Amino acid sequence: MIHETAIVDPAAEIGTDVTIGPYSVVGPEVRLGDDTQVGSFCSLGVDGPGGALSVGKRSLIRSHSVLYGDSTFGPELETGHHVNLREGLRVGRNLRVGTGSDLQGQMKIGNYCRLHSHVLFAQGSVIGDFVWIFPFVVFTQDPHPPSDRLTQAPTIEDKAVIATMSVIFPGITIGSGSLVGAASVVTRDVLPGRMVFGSPARDVCAATEVPWGDGAPGSPYPWWHHFQRGYPAEVAFNEEGPTYAG
Amino acid sequence: MIHETAIVDPAAEIGTDVTIGPYSVVGPEVRLGDDTQVGSFCSLGVDGPGGALSVGKRSLIRSHSVLYGDSTFGPELETGHHVNLREGLRVGRNLRVGTGSDLQGQMKIGNYCRLHSHVLFAQGSVIGDFVWIFPFVVFTQDPHPPSDRLTQAPTIEDKAVIATMSVIFPGITIGSGSLVGAASVVTRDVLPGRMVFGSPARDVCAATEVPWGDGAPGSPYPWWHHFQRGYPAEVAFNEEGPTYAG
Amino acid sequence: MIHETAIVDPAAEIGTDVTIGPYSVVGPEVRLGDDTQVGSFCSLGVDGPGGALSVGKRSLIRSHSVLYGDSTFGPELETGHHVNLREGLRVGRNLRVGTGSDLQGQMKIGNYCRLHSHVLFAQGSVIGDFVWIFPFVVFTQDPHPPSDRLTQAPTIEDKAVIATMSVIFPGITIGSGSLVGAASVVTRDVLPGRMVFGSPARDVCAATEVPWGDGAPGSPYPWWHHFQRGYPAEVAFNEEGPTYAG
Repeated sequence: MIHETAIVDPAAEIGTDVTIGPYSVVGPEVRLGDDTQVGSFCSLGVDGPGGALSVGKRSLIRSHSVLYGDSTFGPELETGHHVNLREGLRVGRNLRVGTGSDLQGQMKIGNYCRLHSHVLFAQGSVIGDFVWIFPFVVFTQDPHPPSDRLTQAPTIEDKAVIATMSVIFPGITIGSGSLVGAASVVTRDVLPGRMVFGSPARDVCAATEVPWGDGAPGSPYPWWHHFQRGYPAEVAFNEEGPTYAG
Repeated sequence: MIHETAIVDPAAEIGTDVTIGPYSVVGPEVRLGDDTQVGSFCSLGVDGPGGALSVGKRSLIRSHSVLYGDSTFGPELETGHHVNLREGLRVGRNLRVGTGSDLQGQMKIGNYCRLHSHVLFAQGSVIGDFVWIFPFVVFTQDPHPPSDRLTQAPTIEDKAVIATMSVIFPGITIGSGSLVGAASVVTRDVLPGRMVFGSPARDVCAATEVPWGDGAPGSPYPWWHHFQRGYPAEVAFNEEGPTYAG
Repeated sequence: MIHETAIVDPAAEIGTDVTIGPYSVVGPEVRLGDDTQVGSFCSLGVDGPGGALSVGKRSLIRSHSVLYGDSTFGPELETGHHVNLREGLRVGRNLRVGTGSDLQGQMKIGNYCRLHSHVLFAQGSVIGDFVWIFPFVVFTQDPHPPSDRLTQAPTIEDKAVIATMSVIFPGITIGSGSLVGAASVVTRDVLPGRMVFGSPARDVCAATEVPWGDGAPGSPYPWWHHFQRGYPAEVAFNEEGPTYAG
């Protein structure tokens, strides 16, 4: 199941039932969990400053992706094509990260996060559990570019949602269960459970006050009251949000 | 003309005078029309849920591109590098789609469309003929992300133009021959022949009232009154727009 | 140091101590300076209208990158992954250009520029020395898309800084040492040393009046008064900015 043109270092630890596609390259300090699939033209554990790359069981890494050394991914990582996941990532279970996304290293990402395509996270970002990030969202790190002052990338708390094309300024905290509307520029902290929108983003209302828009009663938020698709079996949902065993 | 390192499944149907570059991979259910050129490091008909990939004659697919199965492209498809064209695309003649663009599947695109680099179309988008989309335009699909309500990606009618870095909300129709200014966030339908701009986008004027800006008389719109470059010989132009035979 | 799977045309001029990674393809009119490193899955001097590709000494080209023919890069070029550098580039020393960036050809870039990931420069852009461009900045070329009027891509003068997700309109000049804030849409020239922000961007103040934000005295601008990291040894700094010997 390892294609004859794949170049896999003999020191790499490859689990059982792992598939590696044509022309992919796997370095010596790579550990791929059982039942993982790697597409073609991937570069795993070759680029970057070195160190071990560990990918959990039942992962799917699509073609043309680059994963650096010195990173750890829990089970059920799923990537799009052409992703760039740099060094120093500490990632929980079941991360999905879409085509063309670029995680610039040295960050912690919780469990069951959903990052869509073409997101860009600055070094040092901190992401909780069950976070949703939509395409072309950018997390920035330097409030006065270019500078050498110690800066801090954003912190995104559990269950927060950031809609497409938004920019999150350095040091900002996006509170638990909050919602950032599309094409917003977030220059101030977002409190838990609030909805913000605009450039610069203004506090609009509680997320639970956002209407369905078609006149239906209630609100689409909190999202976990009506949306529970695509999570693994160990995830359960209650009033306060999704939870997981183990 | 098929490079010795290209991996072409014997079941693939390769037309006459087709070129396939180094290290590209072509799956069994792929049909490439005559005189088509495929660059290096491409993955054709390998990814996705399976099904046939058909690419018409005289196409050009540049390097590092991914085309899924279950898609059909008319003749003279031209892609940039690093594109991602997923399953369920039904595309007419002479589509150009630029570097890094990402068409997320299950959509219909008409004839002679011009999609520049780094555009992102949500699943289910509907695109007419002679449409122009500029870089980093995003079509969204879910008005309340994440949700399970039935949502509808945008519909872009014939000859419409969407300038760079604009976001089009779910369910929106961009009318025939209309113009969306750069960096707009389109939250309401755009009527045919109108010009909108801003975040959220406001109706500004008829497209034909947009001035040249340098004091020249008349308007750059409708664009087909002064711009007719780059179309194949079968395209003719009249007062109402481009037309094509066959 | 040239991997056995790399395909290097015998006519290419490869300097001493050059490394070329697995599966990269190097065309006949390519010249790679001494001590240059090329990652895997790169395509150098193969795509485009032909002509020589020259890359200076001590360069680093990361994986999955595409460099066209008819371009010249000074020493110490450093690219991210998945970049697309088209034909007709005339680039000075020590350019850094990040992952996913797309330089669409026919442009002049000075010395010691820093282009972050996912920037898009239209054909004909003119970039000075010591310029900083942050992610997802777009330079446009056509004021009335699509048109055939002669248009001019932006000109960015020495030491200017453009923050993330900004759009620069055609023909605009961004003055020396000026600062464009994040997510701005620049529709008018920016004078030297000014700070602009917004959509459309408004003149806010002199860059030197931008505060640190944490109450510290002084300003982060001009940036070279406090930021001097990452430049080669031949760069010196004085009151007016960085300078270089040779």
